[in-house]
Amino acid sequence: MKKVKIGMVGLGRLGMDHARNIAFQIPNAELTAVCSIVEEEVDHVQKEWGVPFGYTVYEEMLKNKELDAIAVISPSPEHCGQIEKALDAGFHVFTEKPLGVTVEECRIAERAVERNADRVFMVGFMRRYDPSYAYAKKKIEDGAIGQPILVRATSIDPESTIEGAIRFAATSGGLFLDMTVHDIDLARWFLDSDVTNVFASGGSYLHKEFDVYGDGDNVAALMQFENGTMGMFHSGRNAPHGYHVETEIVGTHGTLRVGTVPEKNQVQIFDTYGARKECVSGFPERFEEAYRLEVQEFVDCILEDRKPSVSVYDGTKATEVAYAATESFRENKLVQLENQVEKMK
Amino acid sequence: MKKVKIGMVGLGRLGMDHARNIAFQIPNAELTAVCSIVEEEVDHVQKEWGVPFGYTVYEEMLKNKELDAIAVISPSPEHCGQIEKALDAGFHVFTEKPLGVTVEECRIAERAVERNADRVFMVGFMRRYDPSYAYAKKKIEDGAIGQPILVRATSIDPESTIEGAIRFAATSGGLFLDMTVHDIDLARWFLDSDVTNVFASGGSYLHKEFDVYGDGDNVAALMQFENGTMGMFHSGRNAPHGYHVETEIVGTHGTLRVGTVPEKNQVQIFDTYGARKECVSGFPERFEEAYRLEVQEFVDCILEDRKPSVSVYDGTKATEVAYAATESFRENKLVQLENQVEKMK
Amino acid sequence: MKKVKIGMVGLGRLGMDHARNIAFQIPNAELTAVCSIVEEEVDHVQKEWGVPFGYTVYEEMLKNKELDAIAVISPSPEHCGQIEKALDAGFHVFTEKPLGVTVEECRIAERAVERNADRVFMVGFMRRYDPSYAYAKKKIEDGAIGQPILVRATSIDPESTIEGAIRFAATSGGLFLDMTVHDIDLARWFLDSDVTNVFASGGSYLHKEFDVYGDGDNVAALMQFENGTMGMFHSGRNAPHGYHVETEIVGTHGTLRVGTVPEKNQVQIFDTYGARKECVSGFPERFEEAYRLEVQEFVDCILEDRKPSVSVYDGTKATEVAYAATESFRENKLVQLENQVEKMK
Amino acid sequence: MKKVKIGMVGLGRLGMDHARNIAFQIPNAELTAVCSIVEEEVDHVQKEWGVPFGYTVYEEMLKNKELDAIAVISPSPEHCGQIEKALDAGFHVFTEKPLGVTVEECRIAERAVERNADRVFMVGFMRRYDPSYAYAKKKIEDGAIGQPILVRATSIDPESTIEGAIRFAATSGGLFLDMTVHDIDLARWFLDSDVTNVFASGGSYLHKEFDVYGDGDNVAALMQFENGTMGMFHSGRNAPHGYHVETEIVGTHGTLRVGTVPEKNQVQIFDTYGARKECVSGFPERFEEAYRLEVQEFVDCILEDRKPSVSVYDGTKATEVAYAATESFRENKLVQLENQVEKMK
Repeated sequence: MKKVKIGMVGLGRLGMDHARNIAFQIPNAELTAVCSIVEEEVDHVQKEWGVPFGYTVYEEMLKNKELDAIAVISPSPEHCGQIEKALDAGFHVFTEKPLGVTVEECRIAERAVERNADRVFMVGFMRRYDPSYAYAKKKIEDGAIGQPILVRATSIDPESTIEGAIRFAATSGGLFLDMTVHDIDLARWFLDSDVTNVFASGGSYLHKEFDVYGDGDNVAALMQFENGTMGMFHSGRNAPHGYHVETEIVGTHGTLRVGTVPEKNQVQIFDTYGARKECVSGFPERFEEAYRLEVQEFVDCILEDRKPSVSVYDGTKATEVAYAATESFRENKLVQLENQVEKMK
Repeated sequence: MKKVKIGMVGLGRLGMDHARNIAFQIPNAELTAVCSIVEEEVDHVQKEWGVPFGYTVYEEMLKNKELDAIAVISPSPEHCGQIEKALDAGFHVFTEKPLGVTVEECRIAERAVERNADRVFMVGFMRRYDPSYAYAKKKIEDGAIGQPILVRATSIDPESTIEGAIRFAATSGGLFLDMTVHDIDLARWFLDSDVTNVFASGGSYLHKEFDVYGDGDNVAALMQFENGTMGMFHSGRNAPHGYHVETEIVGTHGTLRVGTVPEKNQVQIFDTYGARKECVSGFPERFEEAYRLEVQEFVDCILEDRKPSVSVYDGTKATEVAYAATESFRENKLVQLENQVEKMK
Repeated sequence: MKKVKIGMVGLGRLGMDHARNIAFQIPNAELTAVCSIVEEEVDHVQKEWGVPFGYTVYEEMLKNKELDAIAVISPSPEHCGQIEKALDAGFHVFTEKPLGVTVEECRIAERAVERNADRVFMVGFMRRYDPSYAYAKKKIEDGAIGQPILVRATSIDPESTIEGAIRFAATSGGLFLDMTVHDIDLARWFLDSDVTNVFASGGSYLHKEFDVYGDGDNVAALMQFENGTMGMFHSGRNAPHGYHVETEIVGTHGTLRVGTVPEKNQVQIFDTYGARKECVSGFPERFEEAYRLEVQEFVDCILEDRKPSVSVYDGTKATEVAYAATESFRENKLVQLENQVEKMK
Repeated sequence: MKKVKIGMVGLGRLGMDHARNIAFQIPNAELTAVCSIVEEEVDHVQKEWGVPFGYTVYEEMLKNKELDAIAVISPSPEHCGQIEKALDAGFHVFTEKPLGVTVEECRIAERAVERNADRVFMVGFMRRYDPSYAYAKKKIEDGAIGQPILVRATSIDPESTIEGAIRFAATSGGLFLDMTVHDIDLARWFLDSDVTNVFASGGSYLHKEFDVYGDGDNVAALMQFENGTMGMFHSGRNAPHGYHVETEIVGTHGTLRVGTVPEKNQVQIFDTYGARKECVSGFPERFEEAYRLEVQEFVDCILEDRKPSVSVYDGTKATEVAYAATESFRENKLVQLENQVEKMK
């Protein structure tokens, strides 16, 4: 069996999850190299899992001729530069979201992808590969709800991780870039259209610490799309019940909802608190399978010489819209995405 | 508008609920007389609601020629005697369940009903008039699930009322007569057949007090019906979440469930306990509407000169089966209902 | 028992429902007079239910000294004029929503209420009296979810009534005034604040007929409130599954949802379509109890000499905001509610 | 990383699923050999997945000194003989359920396990390893519901696979051995006790074909356990909505339910059929993860030199009880499990 040999950069928490998947859970993939500026991380993974190559300098890894593909799981500001280098060195590239932290950076990645059109490039909007979301998309394509006209999305991180969120607040880019960006991608995917207008609101209702960064602990936005459809978004940082990701797609002839109750598993409890379901603790638990399936799809695309449904432009668009929402929220005005049509690919 | 004038005997808690319904919630009924051996209760209700007649002696009320019907909401051991007297005095009769506390008593009521075949007689198996149960029955009659083959029923009183249940244990007749009797009636109704064999089990798992009375805090039974169908029953006294009444009707082509989550209302709570629904506190809350609708049906039957779907024999049968289940539970043996065919009407 | 004697104007469908409740379901109320320009309606109700007085001229009914209160269930454009006359004639007044069809009309009603400050006046925002919504409000007041920060509301009429909606389109005032107005009232109630900014969107996605009237079959709005909180609204006319009214109240420490699944009753069906619940068919089914309870509250307020929680200003505000949303939708711009603070009572 | 080298016998549908898991999804396992009497199956798997060794004679595979463990996924009547041979040849052994098709066979396996006490032996009651069931067990051990007193279990195969079930009817051993056996194992696990008495019922209500084999399309049983607790079971072959496996564990202080709605995924559909969830299509879909996790546990037990929670005696007990239920169903009598205490290990 032909195996895709992958070199991975970034061995933080999410990096380790991806590494484990590539090493053990994806039959036709091999974790051939790992790279991190933290030498101990590299040593640990190499030794623990028998990974042949280890690097502390990214450019060194790109010289390894055994590799087929590079997985970029480094801090967000590194993404676009590393993507460009890997593509130009001839590798297929998978990158974690966001594509880049500015639209300008995203353009650099776009150009690199265009220059290397025969390479597989994929942005890690893992939700598209979650079995429930993929099933919803399939139902829609099969006509189950007619024409989608409204996507309503809720994404709330658990209160239990609020300390990390506050620490990360200065560099997160804000809730829209950090959380809503996933919902924006889903809305564009389900509605098959691009955002033209955004009005956003929000505040730091419980955790005032976010105010300093022009951010909030809960934000909302109403967006209009080119084809006349709508998106409604609520993102937050402090759900007491857990990690709440829920999406509604309203169509002309029916509605689909994904994840109305973010249940942990199939256990229901009847006790003094009533009839209840415990909820998932965070994105690693909720999207465990999606993280595996997206890389599986990346690997299959390489082996089958085809492109994934999520393109580099999807990465740029989601970032662009998240910026527009942030601007609307900060300046309390309606923001129009300029040159929307021209920018469309 | 013609109104049915009702005299009611018994002004305990459930009696007061019925009285209030008759007085104010049932358009074509009038609470014309009340009777209780407790004079204060009679005075209170007469004064508060302007009820024309009050009695402390049941037989006196039966002499009142203005009355059309008698509602028997007295203690269970009084039911059959009062039913007989009221019917023989020419009144229509509604009685709370159980019909009687022994099968012999039930026979007395049966004979009285047969002697007065032109009178409306109804046993208060209120669940049949609950909108959800009535809807389930209608769906089944419409063929929604094919032929019903199994009824599975759960009835659990709330732990919050356990003290009363323990006080009442000596005279309750046990869980099967007290609680399961409703499920037995529903099973007979949905399966359209009579019980032939019963095997029961159970115990006093948390509240040992019930052991003394040959009773348990949780009991279960498997029953076979004449037409080859089945009934599974679980009754209990100590649900921490509230009053849990749930019924499943499995058919050859589908299944209906009523009350899977005994939710208090349409409010769902997301908090540190997860995603939850609070549950109903007891039968008065769960069956508030059914208590009204059953009396409405009784009144309508009188006005429209027809008979209710629940007959005096339904009352006897449910009692008979509950006794068989109690015997099976106490003696740990399979109990066959003798002369089953003969007894059928 | 003291009974409040009510004269009702308007005997359309909703009028008949209210009339039936007043006549039979509200113990301390009496339907003493009915008024309609359609004489047959008046005759029918008088004869059928034994209502003492009947009128075809509203002003004649106001001369009836036996009456305590007037219930205005006439077409919306009549409301404010009839309210003013009834109040000035010394009656307590209950009016169906909307208070008025223009803000100017609402002001007339406001002045009349202020002139007759000792009279009970109530606008029929019945949802506040629905047991689930009332329970949610109580939970919030008890601190169950901390400070409410976001209300998200969905109100969709069933596709089965679309023909009537299209016929009614010219005079309905549009979706925001017709449907969302209830959600606006709920949001103001739950958030305890007034709307300052509105951005709305929408379209006629399936039923193009609404375009002509500057209306849509699905609309959405994001609103900002004076206290910094938010409201998100989706209203529609064509839910295939039934009448869908759902409200989420997100608080700093928890979330409540009312009516996530607009279930018809407690029956769940398992068949070839999966595990499913049938849904309520329309507002009469969903809010049957609320329609009764709101009038009960009106009557209790009269008897107990107190005022209902919903004031004349609540009626004006909801209308005002619905107009702002309509303007935003039609002109595709952010609309600020001017003089918001001044207008506040 | 140390890998457990596994030789597998049986390459039917379930065999292929296990083979795929061992080959690709379990990090520290290796599919080193496959065996089937169908040579093409062996060739196919060897070539497709690069499996080093292939056999058509089971005894030949047992001579392979590279192997650490044998997985027995052959037809049920082969299980016990192959288990004995593999254990006596020094291998760790995993076997699919049922342990054996007669209690006598199970005894042979028991003796072989006892002779080779240092080997890991595991019966594939995969439900114990399903994340939801494992979570329920953990909750119970943590005291979440007090003392478990009743397990109620439903297992229904989908109507869509009825033809296969009918073809398989002659050799399946009947519903109790085929389906209920899993629920019996779960009940013994959750209640931590053994069955003493069984009363069963049932029939061929829709598919008369099962009658010939003394089998039914729906059966039910009530069982008593040594510690006084209870089990209620309903198994069937023809759920129109899919594969329905649901378990309730009632405790003295709370209740857990697993799989009340056998939902396919997190997608909820609102359309003309109401608010609905599609259901899983069969056991491969429902227990996909459990099939992987049970073998993962087997492998971990070998590597960590410990024993799995499910023992050879669990295999015998479940078979024994399923036989008792079958006897009760066929002869319509209460069946007592003889020498229950003596047989206990």
